Amino acid sequence: MNEAATLTVDALHERVDAIFRHAGLNAIQAAALARVIVAGERDACKSHGIYRIEGVLRTVKAGKVKPDAVPTLEAAEGSAIVKVNAQGGFANPAFELGVGEVAERARKHGIAALVVNDGTHFSALWPEVEALTDHGLAALVMCPSYSTVAPAGGKKPLLGTNPFAFGWPRPGKSPYVFDFATSMTARGEIELHRRAGKPLPEGWAIGADGEPTTDPEAALAGAMLPFGGHKGSAIGTMIELLAGIMINDLTSPEALEYLGTTALAPLHGELIVAFSPQAFAAGRPGDPFIRAERLFDAIVGQGARLPSQRRFAARQVSSTEGVSLTAPEMEQLERLHSLGLDAVA
Amino acid sequence: MNEAATLTVDALHERVDAIFRHAGLNAIQAAALARVIVAGERDACKSHGIYRIEGVLRTVKAGKVKPDAVPTLEAAEGSAIVKVNAQGGFANPAFELGVGEVAERARKHGIAALVVNDGTHFSALWPEVEALTDHGLAALVMCPSYSTVAPAGGKKPLLGTNPFAFGWPRPGKSPYVFDFATSMTARGEIELHRRAGKPLPEGWAIGADGEPTTDPEAALAGAMLPFGGHKGSAIGTMIELLAGIMINDLTSPEALEYLGTTALAPLHGELIVAFSPQAFAAGRPGDPFIRAERLFDAIVGQGARLPSQRRFAARQVSSTEGVSLTAPEMEQLERLHSLGLDAVA
Repeated sequence: MNEAATLTVDALHERVDAIFRHAGLNAIQAAALARVIVAGERDACKSHGIYRIEGVLRTVKAGKVKPDAVPTLEAAEGSAIVKVNAQGGFANPAFELGVGEVAERARKHGIAALVVNDGTHFSALWPEVEALTDHGLAALVMCPSYSTVAPAGGKKPLLGTNPFAFGWPRPGKSPYVFDFATSMTARGEIELHRRAGKPLPEGWAIGADGEPTTDPEAALAGAMLPFGGHKGSAIGTMIELLAGIMINDLTSPEALEYLGTTALAPLHGELIVAFSPQAFAAGRPGDPFIRAERLFDAIVGQGARLPSQRRFAARQVSSTEGVSLTAPEMEQLERLHSLGLDAVA
Repeated sequence: MNEAATLTVDALHERVDAIFRHAGLNAIQAAALARVIVAGERDACKSHGIYRIEGVLRTVKAGKVKPDAVPTLEAAEGSAIVKVNAQGGFANPAFELGVGEVAERARKHGIAALVVNDGTHFSALWPEVEALTDHGLAALVMCPSYSTVAPAGGKKPLLGTNPFAFGWPRPGKSPYVFDFATSMTARGEIELHRRAGKPLPEGWAIGADGEPTTDPEAALAGAMLPFGGHKGSAIGTMIELLAGIMINDLTSPEALEYLGTTALAPLHGELIVAFSPQAFAAGRPGDPFIRAERLFDAIVGQGARLPSQRRFAARQVSSTEGVSLTAPEMEQLERLHSLGLDAVA
């Protein structure tokens, strides 16, 4: 019987990494996945923490992702586009392969893009945003998902929850980072309401008949709605165009068709745009990093919050005190480690 | 006494252009302003049509914009950033100066950015988006405004209505284009409710006390709210960072401080990101333009609309039947032409 425990971030990384290697993932897949999952747990984002390990194993077991894939990188001379191909593995090691190169090209050309193709995607986007702010760059990251969201005025699932994330580096501080779904809510939230027998807030979903509903069952059989009405719907559509179609990778309807379920992590591409504030600001008076702090001060000064602050506070605690896991969580890590793919259906 | 009239788009352009030249604007300022104003009128966007002529003249008369400015262009070898400086004139001729160069660099590097600095901005962003889709490029355009919007959770105006616009080229068709404020509504809409004595919808604004209000007077003394809650607020903040601070131009609070009023067109910068779909799609099977049409068909096929369709329908009518103006509108054109800057306070 396991007991609740507090692990250092590094120790948790080693455990998660070992689970993935025991389950047959190669070293680069295992390490990259462990990094994003431990980052989620460390930042008290439980929905993107160790809870996700099982989903990874299920997607591997279903044969929908290559556990031994080795991503490849392609970047033509003079181009500001860096393309990494996950080669059917997870998107995370592909991103890690490309991030240094896109940072270098953003510094050289002022702006550059990283395209991730053919990758299975399951994590939040903020770890990727933060990898670029760590390079002193601003970054915009977006990707499709699978069809669960109706376009504004529509009646059926078409768009994905299509996350949209952005980061601005703050020298000596945690960056300004947001990362949100372009749907009103996540499908998991609707599921939680269903289990709790609670009605949904208005505006979250429509039923299979295309009419607004607050019934979680009806919503799960129907479609979620975009955030912000037609504006959010337009942004979700833009993400299908830029991070699906433009990079010749799957759109949300195609990702759903390929998988046949929303219970596994989806296969699709991803678009990252990196901006060099130094290059953009050059030649005019003013230090953009100092000026940005004045904007943040003005936001916080009137009682509004900057996004991600709760995550950064949790990170601070985790880095000094470690990550606390409950007895069932420790038990689960043990179980996943010993059973590997046999632990999942 | 003037009568209602129907003018060809070209004839209307000549009239508007002449008004600006008579008022002392140089040829490039006058022509570029006439183009965006006539485009608005042609597309039945009355709020960005000839109604705007007076605002232009007021801003000139107030000495807040240089009527004889000649924009300049700067683009370092190998850079994917093209910088145009409006030199204190309007942003529109500066954009026109840079659009060909940024299109060329987007084709060369795959992605490129156009920065407009030191320009007075008063038009919609879709004419700029469409200038880039005409080059076969996808484009993202954003700019600050002046402080009229409280950040989500805040109590005072800080952000601008910060428009966010995007376009995707559709060979042989009008492009996919959206262009919206990141506030719930425009300040003009609140003013219209005030004049009509109608309460505002919930969620549009807060009063000077920071509390939600549906009273237009209280809203005008308070602040508008971002669309989509904290998500729209985050996008509005991103626009301040990328299209204000990063390009070392004015943020919305700084633009308001410079002008001292929201009755004149604001001075600030603008950021345009241009993507070459060919460059991004290259090397993988699929034609992004054909694939995009399938997405649009799926949206329209379920009863949802693509943005800007009403504009394109009006444009179709205008190009064959001309633009119809009322007698008071014709009178006003006449008056502005003969009086020039004396026509405005």
